[in-house]
Amino acid sequence: MKIIIVGATGTMGTYLSSAFENEHEIIRVASQGGDFQVDITSPEAIENFFEEVGPFDALISTAGPTYVGPWKKLNDAAFRKGVEGKMMGQINLVLIGQHYINPKGSFTLITGALTDEPQVNFANASAANGAVEGFVRAAAIELENGIRINAVSPTVIENSPHYFPYFPGEIPTTMKQLEFMFRKSVFGASTGHIIKP
Amino acid sequence: MKIIIVGATGTMGTYLSSAFENEHEIIRVASQGGDFQVDITSPEAIENFFEEVGPFDALISTAGPTYVGPWKKLNDAAFRKGVEGKMMGQINLVLIGQHYINPKGSFTLITGALTDEPQVNFANASAANGAVEGFVRAAAIELENGIRINAVSPTVIENSPHYFPYFPGEIPTTMKQLEFMFRKSVFGASTGHIIKP
Ligand SMILES: NC(=O)c1ccc[n+]([C@@H]2O[C@H](COP(=O)([O-])OP(=O)(O)OC[C@H]3O[C@@H](n4cnc5c(N)ncnc54)[C@H](OP(=O)(O)O)[C@@H]3O)[C@@H](O)[C@H]2O)c1
Ligand SMILES: NC(=O)c1ccc[n+]([C@@H]2O[C@H](COP(=O)([O-])OP(=O)(O)OC[C@H]3O[C@@H](n4cnc5c(N)ncnc54)[C@H](OP(=O)(O)O)[C@@H]3O)[C@@H](O)[C@H]2O)c1
Repeated sequence: MKIIIVGATGTMGTYLSSAFENEHEIIRVASQGGDFQVDITSPEAIENFFEEVGPFDALISTAGPTYVGPWKKLNDAAFRKGVEGKMMGQINLVLIGQHYINPKGSFTLITGALTDEPQVNFANASAANGAVEGFVRAAAIELENGIRINAVSPTVIENSPHYFPYFPGEIPTTMKQLEFMFRKSVFGASTGHIIKP
Repeated sequence: MKIIIVGATGTMGTYLSSAFENEHEIIRVASQGGDFQVDITSPEAIENFFEEVGPFDALISTAGPTYVGPWKKLNDAAFRKGVEGKMMGQINLVLIGQHYINPKGSFTLITGALTDEPQVNFANASAANGAVEGFVRAAAIELENGIRINAVSPTVIENSPHYFPYFPGEIPTTMKQLEFMFRKSVFGASTGHIIKP
């Protein structure tokens, strides 16, 4: 399979790229590094990227910038980080990418436990996650040609210990679990699912 | 109580205004009619409104414009209707309104069954609803001074028969049920809840 990983240079993306690269052709995307530099907050940049990279079988996104910080500073401007990044960035990967993906291909977007289990400082991510999950369920009944879509929703991940203090009592998702959640979406048959550890 | 109803001239808002006006002071808000004309897609308009209307006890929002129509026409530009309207419009009512509401006051936002039960033509509403519900859960652990926040999530409502064909097999929420869902949020003690019929 030809698999595009958007966010391939990050904590999750680096692990997933290594996990899949022996069996599949991996296209690494990020705004700065990787094989292709694409800023997902720009629909034009996304469109140009798909034109250039050509048909593909699966797109995985682990790119989802959000505002993390004090509620007191969370105004409309700060909220836009998650709206343009984790929400519309990922949604536009699908709205545009559906015209380039092969029949029976799949999209797998990233959300997280914050959708249903909020934590202090992370309201922007809770909203962006909720939007992406609502979109995934809806897109699953609209996409044609057997194209599937799911979201992967881990708790704080094993390789992000710097986040542990913000998620008291949350059992971290291991990297192996994370990999298998993405495997279930990409190589399984389900669509419209929010895959949890 | 002094209760602001944003969307007071719509199907839900008209019913709720009548239901509450004998016992409470109702401030009717809409972009065109009502006591105050406020376009909730503008944070400045929201700020000016709260300055003018002064302290209040509860805010109910039944204003949530979204793009309804064919998936094929749902691009980034069309998606913005729900992002600026139902999502950021309602979120900004809270982010700004929290500085004007009385202690122990409440915000009640509108979502809908589409969050979890998608229908063809309504992907934009599913995403906006999901965002608002994620935000409501997160805001509930951040708001101070006993201020509460909930969402009301009805199925298609009894007084909107023009929508019935788009929601096959969905049991309509009666107007009395809708009223009682809002009563639970405004006059009850819960916070961070998604109230369903
Ligand atoms: N880490 C956790 O414990 C955890 C748990 C649950 C959910 N999540 C969610 O999972 C996602 C990824 O987490 P992570 O820890 O792997 O993040 P990360 O280490 O910060 O990596 C993010 C990746 O996305 C890319 N990226 C960021 N903004 C982009 C943009 N505008 N356009 C294109 N690429 C962009 C980054 O590359 P560039 O900087 O070059 O753009 C990088 O490759 C986030 O949405 C996060 O909320 C994380
Ligand atoms: N009707 C249903 O069966 C149903 C079921 C579940 C959920 N919902 C959701 O419930 C909400 C209300 O539904 P409804 O049927 O009562 O809608 P509606 O009859 O269209 O009324 C919408 C109200 O919001 C106001 N409004 C719209 N855009 C606004 C803006 N930018 N700024 C300020 N006010 C604005 C409208 O007044 P102006 O035109 O003057 O601005 C009107 O008062 C929608 O979000 C809908 O998705 C509806």
